[in-house]
Amino acid sequence: MPLQLPSILLTQAVDEMSKLPGIGSKTALRLVLHMLRQDETHVTTLAESLVRLRKEVKYCKICHNISDTDVCGICADTRRDASVVCVVENIQDVMAIENTQQFRGLYHVLGGVISPIDGVSPSDLNIQSLVERVDEGNVKEVILALSPTMEGDATNFFIFRKLADKGITISVIARGVAQNDELQYTDEVTLGRSIVNRTPFRN
Amino acid sequence: MPLQLPSILLTQAVDEMSKLPGIGSKTALRLVLHMLRQDETHVTTLAESLVRLRKEVKYCKICHNISDTDVCGICADTRRDASVVCVVENIQDVMAIENTQQFRGLYHVLGGVISPIDGVSPSDLNIQSLVERVDEGNVKEVILALSPTMEGDATNFFIFRKLADKGITISVIARGVAQNDELQYTDEVTLGRSIVNRTPFRN
Repeated sequence: MPLQLPSILLTQAVDEMSKLPGIGSKTALRLVLHMLRQDETHVTTLAESLVRLRKEVKYCKICHNISDTDVCGICADTRRDASVVCVVENIQDVMAIENTQQFRGLYHVLGGVISPIDGVSPSDLNIQSLVERVDEGNVKEVILALSPTMEGDATNFFIFRKLADKGITISVIARGVAQNDELQYTDEVTLGRSIVNRTPFRN
Repeated sequence: MPLQLPSILLTQAVDEMSKLPGIGSKTALRLVLHMLRQDETHVTTLAESLVRLRKEVKYCKICHNISDTDVCGICADTRRDASVVCVVENIQDVMAIENTQQFRGLYHVLGGVISPIDGVSPSDLNIQSLVERVDEGNVKEVILALSPTMEGDATNFFIFRKLADKGITISVIARGVAQNDELQYTDEVTLGRSIVNRTPFRN
């Protein structure tokens, strides 16, 4: 239900804010009224930073991560292993994997997963450029690190078919019980797979 | 902890967004990345509506509610009872009371409550203009409708002292158990007061 606001200017600002995901009209009103209590420079700085980002944003021409330069810091880092490419859905996933400090290869940001229901087809994603990257001949392994969902699995399979005859290793991140999860509360698909895909004990 | 983002432009936008109340850095990143997927016009429209509101916002010169005109729609409505003024903290409270459809008088928006801890003193609030409004002679009753908190009570008392010798009725909104509350879970101050301040039964 739209709020009955006493001003057209206020209504417009609240309407625009509440178009953002997860921001309802009441939250939008709270945020907008907060801005009214701030210095005008605070609001113009916020507005300018959003417009500037939208207008000037660049994506790394190799991995499609957001970058200020043509090639991002990760792709330009010669200490990293350019023969291993980890395929992820979005930039948050790059950040999450970087935080683990367990991966020294490069990334490939798809920009989403195949999802007919949301109108996302393979051509909307950076899949062709992944194939071209592999065709250049330096990539030895592609790690598929998409979400363990139906859409993620479908995308994994689509990419697998595109790369299957390229003579490279194609792997998928391990699925199983999460660290500190309690077995009795783990869903049966995950638990079943974790038994089937058990690994040799290492200590 | 600040996020390690791959772009300065992105970092600036996320920093600015996360200055908003209740928006952490992860939410800010999600919102900003959402904007990157939108048309540029969406983002400029949002930015412009915020800046325009901040620059051009007007407050009703009578009740201090946000308004597009010098006198707001409520104060200008001659069908309303100008002899009763309801004192509220902010514009959301005006909207909440209007929604009840139980009040046909006018409002006076204080812009906050007295709170030494937050550095809000009486002179930061629209209290003097309330006194002047009463001094003009048309107001017969002032209803204090501030939050039932320590700060609200202190503000009620401050306003009461300012208006006590003006020969008008000063009332406070009723406090007691809320509709559909379960008695056993009502706090004891509220429940105690609801007994002391019981009203004659009406059906």
